[in-house]
Amino acid sequence: MPKVGVVLSGCGVYDGTEIHEAVITLLALDRAGAEIIMMAPNIPQMHVVNHLTGEAAEGETRNVLVESARIARGNVKDMKDVKGDDLDALIFPGGFGAAKNLSNFATKGTGMQVDPEVDRLFKEMFAKKPLGLICISPAIAAKSGGDKGVKLTIGTDKDTAAALETMGAQHIDKPVTDIVVDEENEIVTTPAYMLGPRISDVATGIEKLVDQVLKMI
Amino acid sequence: MPKVGVVLSGCGVYDGTEIHEAVITLLALDRAGAEIIMMAPNIPQMHVVNHLTGEAAEGETRNVLVESARIARGNVKDMKDVKGDDLDALIFPGGFGAAKNLSNFATKGTGMQVDPEVDRLFKEMFAKKPLGLICISPAIAAKSGGDKGVKLTIGTDKDTAAALETMGAQHIDKPVTDIVVDEENEIVTTPAYMLGPRISDVATGIEKLVDQVLKMI
Repeated sequence: MPKVGVVLSGCGVYDGTEIHEAVITLLALDRAGAEIIMMAPNIPQMHVVNHLTGEAAEGETRNVLVESARIARGNVKDMKDVKGDDLDALIFPGGFGAAKNLSNFATKGTGMQVDPEVDRLFKEMFAKKPLGLICISPAIAAKSGGDKGVKLTIGTDKDTAAALETMGAQHIDKPVTDIVVDEENEIVTTPAYMLGPRISDVATGIEKLVDQVLKMI
Repeated sequence: MPKVGVVLSGCGVYDGTEIHEAVITLLALDRAGAEIIMMAPNIPQMHVVNHLTGEAAEGETRNVLVESARIARGNVKDMKDVKGDDLDALIFPGGFGAAKNLSNFATKGTGMQVDPEVDRLFKEMFAKKPLGLICISPAIAAKSGGDKGVKLTIGTDKDTAAALETMGAQHIDKPVTDIVVDEENEIVTTPAYMLGPRISDVATGIEKLVDQVLKMI
């Protein structure tokens, strides 16, 4: 039974993990018989967004690990306690949490930094074990993958693609239902809600990604 | 294209909607080509639970509609604006939100009350259009279904089953992967995370429920 890590970044598309993408990932992994290890960094969220209005909720604070536990039904580890040796593969669902909490791509663009624990675990596994990155989370692979020219997709958004290429990645346009496989670096990506809009199309892409990640173990 | 309402009760199993159950419901509905109308009552949550520790978060307050918007990616209606005539069917995912926010079954047991807007919409549709209830939410059907002796399941928990029977329902034991269909009252139920524990088994039951609800339209 392969051990697959799933990195959460809060709970909700605008300030944390994209919930549909996370659940579709968990379901595909469980249906394939994988053991799932959910994790998140134990840090404050960049901010809290009222998902009804789309506005930042002034004065409110939430913790990434605590909110991620909502998706994980409590079964989530502090990322600092997870080592690359513990896992056979690692998958990052998307949502703004990947660009606001796991990194600061949302505010710093190509000058982004990756959270130290996320960067550590990524590098412990990079080009040795398969990594799947969904939606906007390929930005983490572009940065933490360094000068390896990681082949990836975030869909078809020209500005975002150009930013990832500036950081050294090679972007390939793909529709929501498809994936990009970088065999050399063992990186698999799919656009998901970078394109959407239908959950069924998002699921088709994520199911292909999970299947490919498991094949590469 | 059938119009199917999905009733949310917050975001997180211990104080709101069970997230996996909601997403699996949305995915099954979209794959079947249904139009989805998400909704939640605009009321405060009973309380906020830290899902990492399982403890109530003292002094914190959240709103059911605002937190439900996390699962809905912002696309959620205030339940008071939805009428039975707008819908062809209605589905309630589970989670403690069904027993803490949509009703007070968690604290009052058989003396429970159902939120007035939830009760209104349920009764506008009951025995006229199909209703699907997942996990603990069949408690709402037991109460709002009155003396009609609704046939339903919450799995195999004897105390919960006895409570629903005291309120007038007829409980049938079922495994997580199965459903109960009350043809006369047009009620479909599945145990989901009342039993779990695997998301893949929960999904099998919910996919059967969605399929049956759509067939009964």
